[in-house]
Amino acid sequence: MDLEFGAEDQLVIQSVLQFAERYLAQGQFGGETGDIAHRIRSEIADLGLWGMCIDSSRHGLGFSRVTGVAVVATLASYSASVGLVVGQHALVCAGLAHWGGSDGTLGTLATLLARGTTSYCHVDASRCVLSSVSPSHEVVRLSGTVPLVPGAAHAGGLLVTFPSGMALLSSDTPGITVLPHITLGLCSAGWATVTFDNVTVCVEADCLGNKFANLAYEQQLLVDAAVAVGIAQGALQVSVAYAQDRHQFGKPISDFQAIQWKIADSAVDVEAARSLLFRAAAEVDGTRRLAYAAMAARYSRTVASGITRHGMQIHGGYGYTTDYVIERLFRDAHHLEGVAEPNHSDILPVISAVYGRTRDGLS
Amino acid sequence: MDLEFGAEDQLVIQSVLQFAERYLAQGQFGGETGDIAHRIRSEIADLGLWGMCIDSSRHGLGFSRVTGVAVVATLASYSASVGLVVGQHALVCAGLAHWGGSDGTLGTLATLLARGTTSYCHVDASRCVLSSVSPSHEVVRLSGTVPLVPGAAHAGGLLVTFPSGMALLSSDTPGITVLPHITLGLCSAGWATVTFDNVTVCVEADCLGNKFANLAYEQQLLVDAAVAVGIAQGALQVSVAYAQDRHQFGKPISDFQAIQWKIADSAVDVEAARSLLFRAAAEVDGTRRLAYAAMAARYSRTVASGITRHGMQIHGGYGYTTDYVIERLFRDAHHLEGVAEPNHSDILPVISAVYGRTRDGLS
Repeated sequence: MDLEFGAEDQLVIQSVLQFAERYLAQGQFGGETGDIAHRIRSEIADLGLWGMCIDSSRHGLGFSRVTGVAVVATLASYSASVGLVVGQHALVCAGLAHWGGSDGTLGTLATLLARGTTSYCHVDASRCVLSSVSPSHEVVRLSGTVPLVPGAAHAGGLLVTFPSGMALLSSDTPGITVLPHITLGLCSAGWATVTFDNVTVCVEADCLGNKFANLAYEQQLLVDAAVAVGIAQGALQVSVAYAQDRHQFGKPISDFQAIQWKIADSAVDVEAARSLLFRAAAEVDGTRRLAYAAMAARYSRTVASGITRHGMQIHGGYGYTTDYVIERLFRDAHHLEGVAEPNHSDILPVISAVYGRTRDGLS
Repeated sequence: MDLEFGAEDQLVIQSVLQFAERYLAQGQFGGETGDIAHRIRSEIADLGLWGMCIDSSRHGLGFSRVTGVAVVATLASYSASVGLVVGQHALVCAGLAHWGGSDGTLGTLATLLARGTTSYCHVDASRCVLSSVSPSHEVVRLSGTVPLVPGAAHAGGLLVTFPSGMALLSSDTPGITVLPHITLGLCSAGWATVTFDNVTVCVEADCLGNKFANLAYEQQLLVDAAVAVGIAQGALQVSVAYAQDRHQFGKPISDFQAIQWKIADSAVDVEAARSLLFRAAAEVDGTRRLAYAAMAARYSRTVASGITRHGMQIHGGYGYTTDYVIERLFRDAHHLEGVAEPNHSDILPVISAVYGRTRDGLS
C-alpha cells in the first residue's frame, strides 16, 4: 500500500496550486459572482484539466481518479465554484466517456471533452418523462424538468443521462431551456434548472444502457467530496492566517488555547476527510466504490460546514463582513451540504454496504 | 498512489481475522479480566505477530507499518486489550529496535523481540530522576515512578526509554516494582504503575541518544489509533448484528430510519478514522509523521467513544448488561480516550504542523 503521490502527480498538484494562486487567489473574487471558470476557460484548458483523467491517446492527461480529486480539491480550496465546474466536466462528464465503456462513440466523446473548447455539465434526467421512439432505444424523447444542475447556466453542453443511456447535447438544442438561479453559496458555479420540452435525442449504440446513471452518481459524489475537502482546507488556511495576524491582549490570538483547539480539531477533520476521499477515489471494487464515494461525500460535506463555522468564530464579527473570504466559504459549505441533504440519498449506499456485510465491515 | 492492500497483506489480515474469530470471538471474554494475551501468547507467536514488522533476516515477518496497524486494528475489533498488548510489543518495542537505528545491538534486540518468548511493553521514563554514572552515558541510574503503563502487569520485560537512550530490562530486575491496577476499561491489558528505585541500567552505544523517546511516542500514537479503530469497528459490527436480530413492531429495528442513520454515520466515521490511520502509518516524511500519528490518534479515539455511545443506544437497556459485548467496548473506548486526554499532548504536534505551514496545509 503506497499512500504517497508519485513525483509526477506532485508536480501536477504544484502547478495547479500555482495556477490557483495566480487566477483564483483568495479574495480576488470575494463574494464570487458570474462565471469565473468561463472567464479562465482557456487557461484551464492550457493546463489540460478539462480532460485530465482521459488517456493521452484521447488528448487527455491520463490522471488517476485519486489525482483527479486532488486537483479538484486544490482548485476548490481557492474557489469552490471553479472546483465544482471543473469536477463536473472533468470527472463526471469526461469520466463517463472515459470509464463508461467501449471504444467507439465513447472514445470520440472523450476526445471532444478533453479538448475543453466547450465546458460540459451533467444532467440526471432519470425522472423526466421519457418516450422511446425506436424499439432499440436509439432514439428517445425527453420531457420534464431537472432542478438545480451545477454548471448548467454557463456550460455550452449538457451530458444527459436517462434510464436507457446517455447523450451529449448542445445547450441551445431546440426544446432545451436553461433557467439560471442566483444562489446563496457556490455563486459562480452556474446553477440552473434545465427543462426538456419533447427533445429528441439520438443515442449511439455505445451509449445505451443504464450503467451510466450509476457511474455519474458515483463520480458526482466524488466531486462533491473533493469540493468539500477544498472548502474545508481553504477555511482552515484563512483561519490560521487570520489568527496569526489578529492580536488581542498583546499577542496573536493563535497563541490562545481556545483558538489552538479549534484549529487542531479542524486540521484533524480536514485530513480525515482527505484520507477518506483518496481511499474512495482509489477503490477499484465496483460494489464498494459507490459506498466509499457516498461515505466520502457525506463526511466531507459535514466537515466543511463545521470548519467554516469554526472559522467564522475565529474571525469574530469580521467573519460576517465580505472583507474576509471566510464568509464566502461558509456560504459555499452550507450550500453544498444543503443540495444533497434534502433527500439524503447518500445514506442508502452506505447502509446497503454495512447491512450486507457483518464481520469485516467495509474494509 | 495505491490504497489497496497487496494479495500477501490481504492473506495476512484474513489469517489474523480467523485467529481472532477462534481465540477472541466477541463474548468469549465478556467483561475481560486477566491477561488474555498472555494465555494465548504462543498462538500469537506462531502467527509471528510479536515481530511482525521486523525483517525476516531478524526472524520477523517484515510487514510495513500500514499492515502492522491493520493487524492491531483487526485484533482490537475482537479484544481491544489484546490489540493494545500486541501493539505495545510489536509496534512500539519491536518498532524501536527495528526502526530506531543501526545494526548492532538494535539488531540483536529485534531478533529477541521477534521471537516473542517474553512479551514486552514500553515504559517512558523521561520524567524519572536520572543520574548518569559513566561520562559516556553508558551507565545510567533511574529513580522514579511511571504511572499507568499498558501491558506492564503481565509483561516479562520492559523497554525503557529515557532522555539519553533506551534499554531492555527484565520485569524482575532488582529495584523495579510493578504495581498492577484494576481498571474500568481495557481490563486485560495489564495496566500497572512501574517504580524504579535506583536501578542501574547499562546502555549499549547503539541505544544512546534522545531519538528513541520521540519514535516511541509516535509509535504509541499509531497503536492507540489502531486500537481505537478496532474498538469502533467492533462496536459497529455488534450494533449492526443486534439491530438486525432485535425486533420491534414486527420488524427488525435495523429497518427503522433512526437506527439506519446512527449506523450509517458510525460506518462513515469508522472508515474516515481507518483511512487517516493508514495514511499516518504510511507517511514517510519524519516531520509530518508525528503530526499525522497525533491526528489519527486524536480522531479515532473520539470516533471510538462516539460509536460505542451510539451502540449503547441501539442496544437500549440491554447495552448496560454484561450479556452484550457493547458494554465492554464502551468502557474500552472511554478508557482509551481518557488515558491520553488529561494532558492532551496529542494536540501539540498537530498545532506545530498547522502553524508551521500555511498554503498547502499538511498534504
